[in-house]
Amino acid sequence: MTAKFGVAIIGCGFIGQKRAGTLGSRGRLLACADPEKERADSVARRYGGAGFADWAEALATPGVQVVIVATRHDALAEITAAAIRAGKHVLVEKPAGRNPDEVFPLLELAAAHGVKVHVGFNHRYHRAFRKAREIVDGGAIGELMFLRARYGHGGRPGYDREWRADPVLSGGGELIDQGPHLIDLAGWFLGHFAEVQGFAHTYYWDMPVDDNGFMILRTAAKQVAFLHASCTEWKNLFSFELYGRQGKLEVTGLGGSYGTERLTHYHMLPEMGPPETTSWEYPMADDSWVAELQEFLDDIELDRAPAAGLDAAIAALVIVQQIYKASGYDHHA
Amino acid sequence: MTAKFGVAIIGCGFIGQKRAGTLGSRGRLLACADPEKERADSVARRYGGAGFADWAEALATPGVQVVIVATRHDALAEITAAAIRAGKHVLVEKPAGRNPDEVFPLLELAAAHGVKVHVGFNHRYHRAFRKAREIVDGGAIGELMFLRARYGHGGRPGYDREWRADPVLSGGGELIDQGPHLIDLAGWFLGHFAEVQGFAHTYYWDMPVDDNGFMILRTAAKQVAFLHASCTEWKNLFSFELYGRQGKLEVTGLGGSYGTERLTHYHMLPEMGPPETTSWEYPMADDSWVAELQEFLDDIELDRAPAAGLDAAIAALVIVQQIYKASGYDHHA
Amino acid sequence: MTAKFGVAIIGCGFIGQKRAGTLGSRGRLLACADPEKERADSVARRYGGAGFADWAEALATPGVQVVIVATRHDALAEITAAAIRAGKHVLVEKPAGRNPDEVFPLLELAAAHGVKVHVGFNHRYHRAFRKAREIVDGGAIGELMFLRARYGHGGRPGYDREWRADPVLSGGGELIDQGPHLIDLAGWFLGHFAEVQGFAHTYYWDMPVDDNGFMILRTAAKQVAFLHASCTEWKNLFSFELYGRQGKLEVTGLGGSYGTERLTHYHMLPEMGPPETTSWEYPMADDSWVAELQEFLDDIELDRAPAAGLDAAIAALVIVQQIYKASGYDHHA
Amino acid sequence: MTAKFGVAIIGCGFIGQKRAGTLGSRGRLLACADPEKERADSVARRYGGAGFADWAEALATPGVQVVIVATRHDALAEITAAAIRAGKHVLVEKPAGRNPDEVFPLLELAAAHGVKVHVGFNHRYHRAFRKAREIVDGGAIGELMFLRARYGHGGRPGYDREWRADPVLSGGGELIDQGPHLIDLAGWFLGHFAEVQGFAHTYYWDMPVDDNGFMILRTAAKQVAFLHASCTEWKNLFSFELYGRQGKLEVTGLGGSYGTERLTHYHMLPEMGPPETTSWEYPMADDSWVAELQEFLDDIELDRAPAAGLDAAIAALVIVQQIYKASGYDHHA
Repeated sequence: MTAKFGVAIIGCGFIGQKRAGTLGSRGRLLACADPEKERADSVARRYGGAGFADWAEALATPGVQVVIVATRHDALAEITAAAIRAGKHVLVEKPAGRNPDEVFPLLELAAAHGVKVHVGFNHRYHRAFRKAREIVDGGAIGELMFLRARYGHGGRPGYDREWRADPVLSGGGELIDQGPHLIDLAGWFLGHFAEVQGFAHTYYWDMPVDDNGFMILRTAAKQVAFLHASCTEWKNLFSFELYGRQGKLEVTGLGGSYGTERLTHYHMLPEMGPPETTSWEYPMADDSWVAELQEFLDDIELDRAPAAGLDAAIAALVIVQQIYKASGYDHHA
Repeated sequence: MTAKFGVAIIGCGFIGQKRAGTLGSRGRLLACADPEKERADSVARRYGGAGFADWAEALATPGVQVVIVATRHDALAEITAAAIRAGKHVLVEKPAGRNPDEVFPLLELAAAHGVKVHVGFNHRYHRAFRKAREIVDGGAIGELMFLRARYGHGGRPGYDREWRADPVLSGGGELIDQGPHLIDLAGWFLGHFAEVQGFAHTYYWDMPVDDNGFMILRTAAKQVAFLHASCTEWKNLFSFELYGRQGKLEVTGLGGSYGTERLTHYHMLPEMGPPETTSWEYPMADDSWVAELQEFLDDIELDRAPAAGLDAAIAALVIVQQIYKASGYDHHA
Repeated sequence: MTAKFGVAIIGCGFIGQKRAGTLGSRGRLLACADPEKERADSVARRYGGAGFADWAEALATPGVQVVIVATRHDALAEITAAAIRAGKHVLVEKPAGRNPDEVFPLLELAAAHGVKVHVGFNHRYHRAFRKAREIVDGGAIGELMFLRARYGHGGRPGYDREWRADPVLSGGGELIDQGPHLIDLAGWFLGHFAEVQGFAHTYYWDMPVDDNGFMILRTAAKQVAFLHASCTEWKNLFSFELYGRQGKLEVTGLGGSYGTERLTHYHMLPEMGPPETTSWEYPMADDSWVAELQEFLDDIELDRAPAAGLDAAIAALVIVQQIYKASGYDHHA
Repeated sequence: MTAKFGVAIIGCGFIGQKRAGTLGSRGRLLACADPEKERADSVARRYGGAGFADWAEALATPGVQVVIVATRHDALAEITAAAIRAGKHVLVEKPAGRNPDEVFPLLELAAAHGVKVHVGFNHRYHRAFRKAREIVDGGAIGELMFLRARYGHGGRPGYDREWRADPVLSGGGELIDQGPHLIDLAGWFLGHFAEVQGFAHTYYWDMPVDDNGFMILRTAAKQVAFLHASCTEWKNLFSFELYGRQGKLEVTGLGGSYGTERLTHYHMLPEMGPPETTSWEYPMADDSWVAELQEFLDDIELDRAPAAGLDAAIAALVIVQQIYKASGYDHHA
């Protein structure tokens, strides 16, 4: 039997806490850190290990093999770099940094230290997306043509006073927050985007970062990803529609306030006309975080490249940066 | 009591026949024309007047005051010009021509002859859109920020052998077919689009015109219209989502294979969170065609400028042409 | 290769015409009859054979092996009896007669003449019900507990002046019109109903027959069918919900004005809570009529008892009669 | 300004706690009681007053004018009687007792002591039902004909080991648990039920009380309430459909696991056919408990008879008892 992986979690907010709950029988929490030390202590009390205010101490805790970096955007790349240098495997939350320049050096660094880095694009691991991927890979909807996706929430009173509204901390607004999930999912199905059109703008919230991002991304083969991310989406919404020559898949909902997760498969009939459809609904608890970690631990054990690695994060950040620039945002200065 | 308007219908296909059924008590069909004369005769037998193969004869029929031009795209502008020169008021179907150059001269011509020209953007007259307009004008969703729309159908076997697949007859594919409805509705709510990004491509059908058009249009105030028109939309779909600072409106369905027409109003609550919603469904027969004609006859009687005039058609065609050019289509040569 | 069955259709209204379209490669229409002879002639012109005003002539046409009886209720049993006596196999539309006394003697008659009689409970043959049956038979929802069904339409202006409103012609109202479909489907899944509670009443239409029937039917094992049929169901509705110890099936819609046909399977999870669901939608043309006839022709060829035979019709009529009596209707006098 | 009402809450489980949160500016919590004293103390700490294990002490607390009785069924009537005798106004949760014999004497008792008793049929106070009532009272759906309702949940592991499964404590199963809400809502719209048909049975849970109740209730005017309550409704469901001669109302969802609360109004059109519909969705927090208490405090101040009084509880219990008897349950012995 394999020994448990020693894990440190850096950043004990909502996501860090969620990650702590996913270690299961394969990971043992040895250390966790958060500038608000009480949050670190609380996670440590519940899941084990020691709590620290200083992430460097968590990193230095003996036995740590895997580091989960779940901080604000401004610290993601710096801590990931330190963890790599310390020879740890790293699961870093998307977007992995505030811009591509922060993340790019990590690629070479990880290669040099022989460690693996997975970026937390957990949406790929939702039940509906796992099944969608299977259907696509099985050829049932034929060659992919294009996809459309809409992702958004409506914020909350004071949203523009939170850290995400400060570009120094966040690197940008909605486009760098929910946008990378859309870009990553799109690239997961369609591949590299060679052409980027898009626009980001601040319509509603009183903040110097965007609250909406619109994109038309194109692969070399002209497959389009038509994407919109919004934090003025007054009723929370997730919709991902994928078109092949022989059918369509649609994922809606991500659970909770986004509605029940559902996958619908539209089968084109030989006579065309309205397609026959099959739908699957997943009202049970989201297990994407568990599935994602399991895969990453498998990657480490089997010495496999993580499916969602730093290259995926860089690809998303390059697109985000390009649209920010074209839209008049310069958070990078 | 006002005498009935004398009407000629040129083009007796699906749309021409539908228009014939809308004259009601205010119009009298005096003439109709179609190159397939049997179609003209059939309309004449049912609704009155004489049937002709040659549209010039219909135009010359004594008493004709209003001409409805419902031909293929290649004849729309030419016949409209002739009707204007003959001093007739004209209802010409969208897109009013194959490109802006065909339609532009009609503006001055109509002014010179003192006649009115309405372009058949009938979607504005659907019940759901009439009510949406009222709600917006009443201020209930606040200042408009952006809108999203998706419109598409799945074609039918042999769709790429029909006249719409021949750019000489159609001026282009999906972007000039269903696209102008989306562009017109978007402009009706947001105004003039100062910036155009977009892409059209032929993914599926074996034809030299596009089957999908993607658009990001922006007004000078940065309001975005995020639009997609498709004839590889395997299950027919119409969705139009309009976002204001205080709420959202969504129109889905247009009746028939597009599903029941419905308007939903999302009211933001002071505490934010999920909005209260009100929905209206209109399963009864679509009366947009009747309402549109009534308005045009009112325009004539009251000497008002038609709400959807040649300028709206030109605005749409300019956008279409710009995207075709950027996407490598040159149907204009 | 088997020769085609010679077929006669008696009653050339909506249903008779629909049946004519289902013969396909296995049946040949030799004769059809309708008191409005033009209707018979029209069917004959389209599908072959001779048209008659007098059904006895159709029955006597040489080569006829199978008779489809699709008349008003008052003639169903009489013509079926005559066809049996003539040695024909019979597909008679539900309810097969106006009351059990009319249908009961046909059982023995058919046995005596060695012919097969199928009753047109076509709902069993809808795609959604065929699949539901498979799922139940495969044990996926466990032992059946009870079911609920709602079936209704909203009539149309003058509905109470049509033949269905005259008990001499119809034998009753809604309970004997749409009711037998519900009772038959319920019995198909649950078996014989030993106990009957119910109520029929005329709420809206100006007619001496009921427009609504409510039922609580119980098997000896206490499984309940909770059924409501209505012709004051203002928006057409079909819903059939079947509960097993391990899950639920729901069929909604029957196509057309009843909405898209859909089957949903609710899978209970070990931890209970909201079940995982799978849905299938069938927007294509209803093929129940074709599937039903094919099965009946197979029954004849293979000398099998029809699945939906006279016993099913009698079971439904006994329940209808019992509820009519308890509710103060006496159409049988 | 009116002084605040002094309130005692007896029973500090889920419902008692919820009631404590509704007192707002008009009530002051002086005492609360629960056999598990820690629950009483917890409510007292949060909302004020003193906590007791013995309800008699809460009742005797000086200044108490209104008593809320939110205990298990077996104590509802006894405590209500004591509170009445002590001269308190009482809000007692439905069903107000285990059977009509327990509740009937309270009517006279309350009259004798000049106090008011409201029974906690809170469903009447949901936003969707308040609006439905307005629409009915305004005549928009015309004279009422019948209604259908379905209400159920799927239990949870061990549900049959909870107190509701013990008839000595509960008086019965699902029919006396969720059933009274359905019967009360039905009677609120249709009036007194003169005829009762129904059946209760234990299909799934290992308990001596029913898990499903089916009802056909009839007023003297033959208006039917067709009701089903279930705790084997695998996916939580609430649906209430009310039919008038000119339209239909439907309430679905009650929030939370029952789905978003929604009211739909189907307006019949003069030409009949599919009705135009208007829907209202209420995703915000349920305020029925607040609205109900406010009304009861108004009743006291204005010396009005409570809308949902003991008579409503008795009416429901009489029906429940009758169906239990007919179904072979004798919990009353």
